[in-house]
Amino acid sequence: MEKLVVGMIGAGRIGIVHTEALLAIPEVKIKVNADLRADELVDYSKKYNIPLIKDYHEILNDPEIDIVYICSSTDSHTQIIKDAANAKKHIFCEKPISKSDKETLEAFNAVKENNVKFFLGFNRRFDRNFLMTKKYVEEQRAGDLQIIRIDSRDPEAPSRSYVETSGGMFFDMMIHDFDMARYISGSEVEEVYAIGEALVDPDISDIDVDTAIVTLKFKNGAIGVITNSRQAVYGYDQRIEVFGSKGSISTENELESQVKISDVDGVHSEKPLWFFLQRYKDAYRKESEVFIEAILNDTEIPVGFEDGIIAQRIAFAAEESLKAKIPIKIELI
Amino acid sequence: MEKLVVGMIGAGRIGIVHTEALLAIPEVKIKVNADLRADELVDYSKKYNIPLIKDYHEILNDPEIDIVYICSSTDSHTQIIKDAANAKKHIFCEKPISKSDKETLEAFNAVKENNVKFFLGFNRRFDRNFLMTKKYVEEQRAGDLQIIRIDSRDPEAPSRSYVETSGGMFFDMMIHDFDMARYISGSEVEEVYAIGEALVDPDISDIDVDTAIVTLKFKNGAIGVITNSRQAVYGYDQRIEVFGSKGSISTENELESQVKISDVDGVHSEKPLWFFLQRYKDAYRKESEVFIEAILNDTEIPVGFEDGIIAQRIAFAAEESLKAKIPIKIELI
Amino acid sequence: MEKLVVGMIGAGRIGIVHTEALLAIPEVKIKVNADLRADELVDYSKKYNIPLIKDYHEILNDPEIDIVYICSSTDSHTQIIKDAANAKKHIFCEKPISKSDKETLEAFNAVKENNVKFFLGFNRRFDRNFLMTKKYVEEQRAGDLQIIRIDSRDPEAPSRSYVETSGGMFFDMMIHDFDMARYISGSEVEEVYAIGEALVDPDISDIDVDTAIVTLKFKNGAIGVITNSRQAVYGYDQRIEVFGSKGSISTENELESQVKISDVDGVHSEKPLWFFLQRYKDAYRKESEVFIEAILNDTEIPVGFEDGIIAQRIAFAAEESLKAKIPIKIELI
Amino acid sequence: MEKLVVGMIGAGRIGIVHTEALLAIPEVKIKVNADLRADELVDYSKKYNIPLIKDYHEILNDPEIDIVYICSSTDSHTQIIKDAANAKKHIFCEKPISKSDKETLEAFNAVKENNVKFFLGFNRRFDRNFLMTKKYVEEQRAGDLQIIRIDSRDPEAPSRSYVETSGGMFFDMMIHDFDMARYISGSEVEEVYAIGEALVDPDISDIDVDTAIVTLKFKNGAIGVITNSRQAVYGYDQRIEVFGSKGSISTENELESQVKISDVDGVHSEKPLWFFLQRYKDAYRKESEVFIEAILNDTEIPVGFEDGIIAQRIAFAAEESLKAKIPIKIELI
Repeated sequence: MEKLVVGMIGAGRIGIVHTEALLAIPEVKIKVNADLRADELVDYSKKYNIPLIKDYHEILNDPEIDIVYICSSTDSHTQIIKDAANAKKHIFCEKPISKSDKETLEAFNAVKENNVKFFLGFNRRFDRNFLMTKKYVEEQRAGDLQIIRIDSRDPEAPSRSYVETSGGMFFDMMIHDFDMARYISGSEVEEVYAIGEALVDPDISDIDVDTAIVTLKFKNGAIGVITNSRQAVYGYDQRIEVFGSKGSISTENELESQVKISDVDGVHSEKPLWFFLQRYKDAYRKESEVFIEAILNDTEIPVGFEDGIIAQRIAFAAEESLKAKIPIKIELI
Repeated sequence: MEKLVVGMIGAGRIGIVHTEALLAIPEVKIKVNADLRADELVDYSKKYNIPLIKDYHEILNDPEIDIVYICSSTDSHTQIIKDAANAKKHIFCEKPISKSDKETLEAFNAVKENNVKFFLGFNRRFDRNFLMTKKYVEEQRAGDLQIIRIDSRDPEAPSRSYVETSGGMFFDMMIHDFDMARYISGSEVEEVYAIGEALVDPDISDIDVDTAIVTLKFKNGAIGVITNSRQAVYGYDQRIEVFGSKGSISTENELESQVKISDVDGVHSEKPLWFFLQRYKDAYRKESEVFIEAILNDTEIPVGFEDGIIAQRIAFAAEESLKAKIPIKIELI
Repeated sequence: MEKLVVGMIGAGRIGIVHTEALLAIPEVKIKVNADLRADELVDYSKKYNIPLIKDYHEILNDPEIDIVYICSSTDSHTQIIKDAANAKKHIFCEKPISKSDKETLEAFNAVKENNVKFFLGFNRRFDRNFLMTKKYVEEQRAGDLQIIRIDSRDPEAPSRSYVETSGGMFFDMMIHDFDMARYISGSEVEEVYAIGEALVDPDISDIDVDTAIVTLKFKNGAIGVITNSRQAVYGYDQRIEVFGSKGSISTENELESQVKISDVDGVHSEKPLWFFLQRYKDAYRKESEVFIEAILNDTEIPVGFEDGIIAQRIAFAAEESLKAKIPIKIELI
Repeated sequence: MEKLVVGMIGAGRIGIVHTEALLAIPEVKIKVNADLRADELVDYSKKYNIPLIKDYHEILNDPEIDIVYICSSTDSHTQIIKDAANAKKHIFCEKPISKSDKETLEAFNAVKENNVKFFLGFNRRFDRNFLMTKKYVEEQRAGDLQIIRIDSRDPEAPSRSYVETSGGMFFDMMIHDFDMARYISGSEVEEVYAIGEALVDPDISDIDVDTAIVTLKFKNGAIGVITNSRQAVYGYDQRIEVFGSKGSISTENELESQVKISDVDGVHSEKPLWFFLQRYKDAYRKESEVFIEAILNDTEIPVGFEDGIIAQRIAFAAEESLKAKIPIKIELI
């Protein structure tokens, strides 16, 4: 079988994640990676035996390449999407697409016009636990949904400089939970109310919060709540509970192992997997498998532009609610 | 040793709970129970071998009796408290004290003036799980508190007529969670925001909600959230999580047993204990043990008038928030 | 209702357990307790307001008394059983009945002739977890039984002097597990093979083992294994797993509470309830409830002489196997 | 970096497992696979883009190839090992090495003489749970070992024809547990006693058992027990408990996900991962990573000939015990 040929754009942390995910998928082959820092990132090339170039246009001009993976910095996303779409390449893009609705729309149009596949990397949707939760929700195991609760906590707070450019907690962190809320419920969020404080690091209180609770009203009548913290010292905490007329579906953390120690102090289990690289390793692979399969069979992509745009609008509303201290309605598409 | 002598007032469901709890405490003896429905409730008398009379004043006039347990209907509470205090009896009173701040205050003054002990039956505080959670919080096992989450769900919704007189979900149900929020955090709630719907039984939507989420801001800077449902088909759901700078303290439900079945369909554990009579059986006994010990040793009562009044004020604020659709500050004492 | 009147014989540790259990059962009343050490045990009398006498014959001569609870030392059991049966009292007897088959048989005959009820205190059968396991086994939830596994560990080893008179580990400890094996499987043990060592305290190796594994062959074809240790530093460990053609039924320990702490070191749960007084508190009450109900309704007693004798014969066989280093068949009744 | 080049021998089920494991390891490249059934197994070649040949000697003659993976049928193992060693290739061999001590010894000598690395595929040793258990045992978290318990159950029984050639349950299944017992305890097994029955499928009782319990005595004084069943309808059951003077280390099954459903029937968790392909997927990759690293760094291989031979001798002893109905000592090397 002819393998699908991938051109990777970006050899940083997330580029490595996708490189390793694709290595394990027999249907594809990574031909090259384009990164502006090609001179510094020589280890990448050595380790994976993949040539590293500087200019991504070479990838777009290579007729052998079927797919591009956009793992570069956020501000380059929409330009690359447009270029890649015009070059008739299928596109996998890391989230967020961009911080501008206008630019996102332009990219969206380029994709539409050129009729290429576009996959947005909301990796959590492909975690086995959330896939199973979604499946059980659709099977009506919880009945009609009434309460959706998401608790999401990172193991360590990012630097101040990261927060300054990320758009803040609602945009760089809770946006995943907004997407999960939509994905799991199968319903749109209509209104949010947010409270939050800088409790982990009071020094960042001038620019952001690091502990937040956001309540949600869904179109289907259900209500929900998301709690976020920048720092859970015990590791990455990723739990969801869906409650309804027939019961509750909940998913607990994945632990480092199933080993327990019982001693004079109590019964000790392992900590959750430390952070997203560990927890979502399989999900990163799974999302690429889904993407590759959709290309091979020319089927629908399950997560794309709309999902990125809507999650961002919920984040905007949450931020506004936090400032205005009132509930805010989501401006739907 | 001379036993302390109790006069019980009320032989209904909660009167039976306290009767059975006291039977197992060797330091006390129930002499008599006064209930207006004495003629109907003959089984009580037969089963426990305790005489049943109609008029509670006989109890107050009996010099042998040291303590009265007020397990009658809410509207009789403040009058009995005042009468019992004036008769120099120590008082255990079921919550709520009353729906009127003014009457509650009068009762409070009678207790103060007569210098008798007064114990308010916030039974959950004496559940082994919440006692242990409180202890661990005080030992700083979670560090500085940042997020408090309470999920509380009843197994079945009460009748419409119950809701009509109970004051509604925030007063008859979530009030326990407001008390737990204060008790566990050791801090006062300053502000609440409530959303809620009648999702279990849309027919009651004209008088109350049955599914609600309330966010909390605490004086110590922490934030919190309470979720409530009138109907969890799998049984009484009573969970708390306290999250802070050093980690998380959480308590899961008590199950009917520790038995698990693994079969072709999965791994099946038991349901939570069905409702408060099952779940808080030991807590009802424990609260009386604490009360009796405080009388024997003339020490401080850990839960009294203030706790009742404050929990009620939070409930008022939540109800106002639900109606006004804005966050509401608590009017503190 | 007239209460059933109990005469308790023995005010030591296990006598107190049964006293407290009976206090909480409204259908009975303890009139008196007879203990040879009545002069020393005055606290018992004070605490429970129950007169303490020396001579148990007074109890047998009291026509008001319906039931005797034999909680005295093992060597006095058969004599008291015979006397009580002849005095037409119903009998609750702590295990073991005696160390002599002959004496046990004499006692058995006295009970038969006088047609009184006899209940042997195999308390574990009334633990909610083992009751539920039994129920599920009978409902065929595991299908045809194939493997039965019992892990049973005490929190601390007894003194050398205790072991010298108890008959050793197979008689004072594993005998409970032999009974559970029969009870849960609903089948008789035909053959055992034992290995064991003195690993907790090598100094007792001249008189007993403290760590042992015994394999079992059941009449119904199933096979099984019991593991025992005198010392689990984390507390009383009492687990059973029943495995069969349709799956597995297993029961885990009861913990001190359902609270979990997640911190930098891991996720910490509570220890199992410390020892039999804590773990089987409810079971002690439950067995008396069952006994009292059988007397009130004149129904069959579920655990009696036969159960005591058979468990002892399995213990004999296990001891013989340990010494002879070969499997030993059980001499059935 | 030059990649290490692998020649795979065998394209059946286990050959595929190792092919997929190696695809995800960037340091190696599979050049070719030799399988006698090359004509039938064309899908392998298509899927992985790896040429499939018939004669493994081509691999041995290829100077580019550094390593051979022996995934062919057991009866071909020792010949291939000798040939590969003489061709100076490093060797990964699936277990068992052979059924003959003599042939195994010859292969062992060829490996020694040619000074190539030899890795025996006891995959379970590389499961994260057992690795962690081993680590905790070495850290003395359980103190001095007293009891080791292994419960190991397959989801479905193999065919009669498989059992006829596999050597039976002790050789094809429990041999893994014998290896784990040695690995985890860090001590040798001195004596075994076995009981067993054909309870899953009585029709195979003429050739083998399918349900067995084997007790173990270790050189270090500890005792142990292994329970095995050919058929756990709920899936692959792989648990170990190590108990000692400081507590207990136990490992539970890996489940399909961490999702739980609470409904009117109870609380339902997922089943264990179905069988070894699912459960040990990561372990298969991990063992190859360890092997590759040992080649790259020229360090010691952690599992080799001795481990294969000893596990087999314990299996022989268990089989003899089952037949002779007495405990049997292990003939050590």
